[in-house]
Amino acid sequence: MRFLHTADWHVGKKFNGYDLLADQGKILDQITAIALREKVEAVVIAGDLYDRTVPPVEAVALLNQKIQHLNLQEQLPVLAISGNHDSGTRLATGSPWYTQTDFYLHTNLEQAFTPVVLGDTQFFLLPYFEPIAARLYFDEEVRSIQEAMELVIAKIKSAFDPKLRHVLVTHFFVAGSLRSDSETKIEVGGLDSVPAELLADFDYVALGHLHGRNALQHPTIQYSGSPLKFSLSEAHQEKGVFLVDTTAGTRHFIPLVPEHEVRILEASYEELLDPVFYQNQQREDFLQIKLTNRGVIPNLMNTLRGIYPRILGLERTAGIERSTEIKQTESQSPEQVMADFFYEMTQEKLTKQQSQWLEDSLGAQNQE
Amino acid sequence: MRFLHTADWHVGKKFNGYDLLADQGKILDQITAIALREKVEAVVIAGDLYDRTVPPVEAVALLNQKIQHLNLQEQLPVLAISGNHDSGTRLATGSPWYTQTDFYLHTNLEQAFTPVVLGDTQFFLLPYFEPIAARLYFDEEVRSIQEAMELVIAKIKSAFDPKLRHVLVTHFFVAGSLRSDSETKIEVGGLDSVPAELLADFDYVALGHLHGRNALQHPTIQYSGSPLKFSLSEAHQEKGVFLVDTTAGTRHFIPLVPEHEVRILEASYEELLDPVFYQNQQREDFLQIKLTNRGVIPNLMNTLRGIYPRILGLERTAGIERSTEIKQTESQSPEQVMADFFYEMTQEKLTKQQSQWLEDSLGAQNQE
Repeated sequence: MRFLHTADWHVGKKFNGYDLLADQGKILDQITAIALREKVEAVVIAGDLYDRTVPPVEAVALLNQKIQHLNLQEQLPVLAISGNHDSGTRLATGSPWYTQTDFYLHTNLEQAFTPVVLGDTQFFLLPYFEPIAARLYFDEEVRSIQEAMELVIAKIKSAFDPKLRHVLVTHFFVAGSLRSDSETKIEVGGLDSVPAELLADFDYVALGHLHGRNALQHPTIQYSGSPLKFSLSEAHQEKGVFLVDTTAGTRHFIPLVPEHEVRILEASYEELLDPVFYQNQQREDFLQIKLTNRGVIPNLMNTLRGIYPRILGLERTAGIERSTEIKQTESQSPEQVMADFFYEMTQEKLTKQQSQWLEDSLGAQNQE
Repeated sequence: MRFLHTADWHVGKKFNGYDLLADQGKILDQITAIALREKVEAVVIAGDLYDRTVPPVEAVALLNQKIQHLNLQEQLPVLAISGNHDSGTRLATGSPWYTQTDFYLHTNLEQAFTPVVLGDTQFFLLPYFEPIAARLYFDEEVRSIQEAMELVIAKIKSAFDPKLRHVLVTHFFVAGSLRSDSETKIEVGGLDSVPAELLADFDYVALGHLHGRNALQHPTIQYSGSPLKFSLSEAHQEKGVFLVDTTAGTRHFIPLVPEHEVRILEASYEELLDPVFYQNQQREDFLQIKLTNRGVIPNLMNTLRGIYPRILGLERTAGIERSTEIKQTESQSPEQVMADFFYEMTQEKLTKQQSQWLEDSLGAQNQE
C-alpha cells in the first residue's frame, strides 16, 4: 500500500493577521499533484483540516472544493480524521455519504475500532478526542490521554488482521516530540502525551498535531508536519508530505514550495528602502525584519510595509540609540524636551517661528 | 410522481428564548413517518433547513441525523434547496456526494437550470438568491427579484421536457401572500416579490419562506408552511405537510402534532395557581397568558413559570388597577408613599414596629 501522508492543513488560518487562504489553496493543489504524479493509492490527512471549530465561510468553500477535486474528480481514496482544532460534529456533515467514493472521515472515537481496508492494509482512523469520550465509551475511570490511549490501542489491536499491514492515523502529542509556536497545547500538566511504545505494533503511525516533521525521531512513527509555515519558529523547517509504502516498509519526504516563504531579513533601513536591494528580494514573503540601524526612525513600519507587504514583525539587532539629552528630561525645561524630540524625529532644529509657536502653546497650557 | 412537500424547518431556532431542538427532532420524525406511511417517491424541502447561517453545533448534529435517516436508512430521495436563513456555501458541504443516493441539495442559482428527473417529473430546484447573483449569472442589469425571476423562469422553461411534468421548488415571497411574524423579510421596498403569473406554467410550485400554509391561495402554487409554530401570530395556524401527486394533479394537507402547542390562555391569577385548573391544562405548552385580574401581583412571572414552564408573554385583559392614593404621590409624605406601596404589594398595613423602622431609615437618609 502506497499512500501520501499529510496533516494540519488549518484551512482558514491567519498568520499574524495575514489571510493565508490563497496560499493554502495553492499548497493543497501541490499535494494533489504529488499524489497523482506518484500514483499513490490513498491520501491520509491526520487532523486539523480547519483552523477553527467554526471556520470562515471562505475556508469552507476552499476545503470543499479541494476535497471534491481529490476524491470525486481524481477519484483518489481519502482517509481523514478530525484534530483538536476541528469541530468533529460539524466536520462530520456528509461523512456517511463519502464512503461510497472511498472518502473516510472519522470524527468519533468509536469509529477507530472499525478499520478501513485498502489493498493489503488496515487503516485505523483515530480522531482527536478528550479523555471524557474514552471514559464514556469504555465506562472506566480514565484520567489522562495516556490512560485512554492504552484502552484504545488495546481495542484496536484486537481488530488486527495478521495477514494485513496496520496503519494508525491519529492526532496527539507523542512523548519525546518537539513543539513549535503554532500548535495549540492540547492539555496542560503532562497528561496529554502518548508514549511512543504504545504505538510500536503498527507498521506505520501517521501523526498530525505538531507542525514540524522532525518533532519525533522514530522508525515507524512520523509527523508529516503542516504543509505551510504558521509561525516564525518554523522559518527554518522544511515543509512537505510523506510518501509511505507499507509493503516495502519505506517512507520518503517530498518538499512543498510555498507561494510566500517565511524568512528573517536582516538589513539597514537604507538598504531596505533601496530598489537595488529590494528588487533582488522576494518582497512578498512573510518577513521578520531585523533592523541594523540604531537611531529612531519615524513612520518606520508604514514605510517598510509600502515595499514589504507581509511583515511579521520588526526587531533591532542592537538597542535603539537615544541622544543623551533625552535621558536627562527631568532636569530640562518643557521647551527643551520638545525641541530635542523634534530633532530626534526630523534631524532638524526648530525654526524661530516654530519655537515661538511652542512657547505660545506651552504658555497657554500653563494658564489653564 | 407522489411526493411530500415541506419547508422552513429552521433547525436550531429559539422561540422567545426557549430551545426548540427536541420539538424539532420529534416533528422531523413525524414527517419521515408520514413519508414512509404514504409511500411517497420523494421528500421536497423548500429552504430554510437551518435558522441561521452558522447554526449551533447541536442543530448541525440533529439535521445531519434526520437527513441521514431519511435518505440513507430509509432510502427516500430528498430534494432540497437553501433558503434565506441558510448559508448556501456552508450547507453545500458534502452535496456532490449526496446525489449518489438521490439526495439533491441545490444552493446555487445555476443549479436550478439542470432539472432533477424522478419518475415522470422534472424538478427544478431554485434556491433563494440575491439579485446580484442573477446579475452575475446573466450579465444583465437586474435590479429586483422580480426582474431576476423573469430571466430565471424563462431559462428554466427552455429546459422543459414536454413529455414530463414540471415542478418548481423555491423560496421567495410570491405576490399576494400573507406574512406572519416569524419570517424574515427578504428585501424592503416591494422589490422582493415574485408575481404568481410568472410561475403559472409549472404543474406544481413547492414554496418555502412564509410559515402559514394559507399564505397564498392558488391552484398550483403552494406554501407548505413551517412544521412548527414559531410565533404567537401563528397560534391559530394548522401546521403540517403536503402530499402532492403531479400525475393525478392533486395535493392533500396532512397535519403534524407538535410536542408543545402554542396557545393563548386566559384566566385569573387564582385560577392559574389552582391545581384543579392547571392539572387539566397542557401546562408544558408555549403559553401567552391573558390575566383577567386588575390588581398588582408581586413576583407574578416567577410564580407562574414554576407551574407553566414555557410562558411566551403575559398581558392583561384590562389595565392594572392602582389604588387612588398611589396616583397622588406628589402631595404625599415619603412615609405615606411607602406605606401605600407596602399595602399594594402585601395587602397588609405596616405594623407599629415597621412604621418605626421606616421612619428611622428615612430620617437617616435625610441626615446624609
